[in-house]
Amino acid sequence: MNKQVILKKRPIGMPTADTWELQSNTIPDVADNQVLVKTHYISLDPAMRGWLNDAKSYIPPVAIDEVMRAGTIGEVIKAGAEAKFKVGDILTGWGGVQQYFITDGEGHFKVDTSLAPMTKYIGALGMPGMTAYFGILEVGKIKEGEVVLVSGAAGAVGSIVGQIAKIKGCTVIGIAGGPEKCKYVVEELGFDACIDYKNEKISAGIKTHCPKGIDVYFDNVGGDILDAALARLRMHARVVICGAISQYNATTHIQGPKNYLSLLVNRATMQGMVVFDYANRYKEAGMQMGQWMMQGKLKTEEDIYEGIENFFPTFERLFNGQKRGKLVLKIIEN
Amino acid sequence: MNKQVILKKRPIGMPTADTWELQSNTIPDVADNQVLVKTHYISLDPAMRGWLNDAKSYIPPVAIDEVMRAGTIGEVIKAGAEAKFKVGDILTGWGGVQQYFITDGEGHFKVDTSLAPMTKYIGALGMPGMTAYFGILEVGKIKEGEVVLVSGAAGAVGSIVGQIAKIKGCTVIGIAGGPEKCKYVVEELGFDACIDYKNEKISAGIKTHCPKGIDVYFDNVGGDILDAALARLRMHARVVICGAISQYNATTHIQGPKNYLSLLVNRATMQGMVVFDYANRYKEAGMQMGQWMMQGKLKTEEDIYEGIENFFPTFERLFNGQKRGKLVLKIIEN
Repeated sequence: MNKQVILKKRPIGMPTADTWELQSNTIPDVADNQVLVKTHYISLDPAMRGWLNDAKSYIPPVAIDEVMRAGTIGEVIKAGAEAKFKVGDILTGWGGVQQYFITDGEGHFKVDTSLAPMTKYIGALGMPGMTAYFGILEVGKIKEGEVVLVSGAAGAVGSIVGQIAKIKGCTVIGIAGGPEKCKYVVEELGFDACIDYKNEKISAGIKTHCPKGIDVYFDNVGGDILDAALARLRMHARVVICGAISQYNATTHIQGPKNYLSLLVNRATMQGMVVFDYANRYKEAGMQMGQWMMQGKLKTEEDIYEGIENFFPTFERLFNGQKRGKLVLKIIEN
Repeated sequence: MNKQVILKKRPIGMPTADTWELQSNTIPDVADNQVLVKTHYISLDPAMRGWLNDAKSYIPPVAIDEVMRAGTIGEVIKAGAEAKFKVGDILTGWGGVQQYFITDGEGHFKVDTSLAPMTKYIGALGMPGMTAYFGILEVGKIKEGEVVLVSGAAGAVGSIVGQIAKIKGCTVIGIAGGPEKCKYVVEELGFDACIDYKNEKISAGIKTHCPKGIDVYFDNVGGDILDAALARLRMHARVVICGAISQYNATTHIQGPKNYLSLLVNRATMQGMVVFDYANRYKEAGMQMGQWMMQGKLKTEEDIYEGIENFFPTFERLFNGQKRGKLVLKIIEN
């Protein structure tokens, strides 16, 4: 039997336990061109919240009564005669929140787990890592000596953004929630400073740590923090809009950045990004990231919880801040 | 005697008659390196409102008890022995709201009034024209066949933006206030359509006239119109932030664009601009604009009022919509 997390209703505001339903269904057999994958880990990402809304976006919403979409890594345990992967291959892709799935391999990629453990391929070497890499380099266009501010600095994307900016010779200031995360960001990840938005005034913190202003702001959160960053832009600054986790569960409307005219005053640019646009360069980025990891220049951490039945309480950690680094759910049972 | 409009207080919200004071002062004599200019026309621009605020911006605020800043065109009537201009030269520059001023010529440019009437040099061949030209071409980066939406379409900048976009082969939709202005925008200026924001639903109008969405939105107004445009962006769209006239007199805070996450969904860019950055290319732009004007491809209109004592009621027209094209105040007395 295959345990699956099925979307049952569209949440208004923060999802609740009954947004999804855990079901057990039989596993269909593979066709000649298909493989059966046993999922080991699923990736939990803030973007999942957006996929629940019945709205035009960069990807269609998850349909009601459909398996919840999620990035996954798992092992091929059965392969049709003409399938493009073979038994034993480790695949990353969009397997969804379920123990097993059938695929023709489209959109799934074989990875080498002798180079890095499985969870890295849904973290630093997966979507969050690719997002960080292309976001800060291609959209942020950082240059040596610039001042980079990163929100969600202890998170899967932000932690990597800041480290890449350090590698490239920037001054990097993080924003994270709570002294423990801030300590981690500075002492473990090597950021120059970190502002604790739960206990400090953000504007004052930015002023202290970025006295000459910000060249690049990488935004994962939106809301008041985006406004505080906009107020301190330097000339020709770039604002990378990667996400807006503070706004995803808004029940009325999104809080727009009231300081957006700072873009005019400072001839600055605010640009949105979606990682999928860089799919043909994932390999290049993965090799570079892997090299930095092996050189000890890029530290990545996964925060791993267990059991498909714990999907919802683990999902909640995306929004209540009770996690550090890449949030992962282990699906395979020992 | 020299009549001068002096800033007396910093307005909160919409300026009032007592924001400025009309004074008569003696005209100082010119030094060897100076000229005395008799102003014929002053330019009235929405940006003037911003110059009244004691806030960090792209230019310092006008000081209290200082002559109100304004773009001007006038004639040199007296010149020092070593001055860079001579009697009879026609100069554009920042003469301010006064009948006469003394300058060493720094920031003032001689123009040829045999090629175009004086008022064009503070309109289509002046700041508004330069703003339109560099804004739509350099920041908007329009390409043939794209869909361009322009707010403030009957205004000094918007009217030129749209016509340049038509010259470049775009589909151009304007937004203006009232049936008369909309008729002017379509029938006189040649836009493909114009949405009357005072009598139509903006979102519905954009949907009707831009069924495939917007490639470039040139924003002069901010507020709800900016949000409506953001909601209909196409992939890789560009939003040019030139101004936000709906927000300049806000007494609490600026209304931020709550649909800004459309930048993410559509991998779009929002970029601010200030025309001064293109000063070394004004000549190139002026020649091109002049050519289009002579070819009948670019129509420009000035709305001219008279008398320095009418500065305030004329200034009010910037914000109550009672003007069309470039707003100008004639200072010279016949």
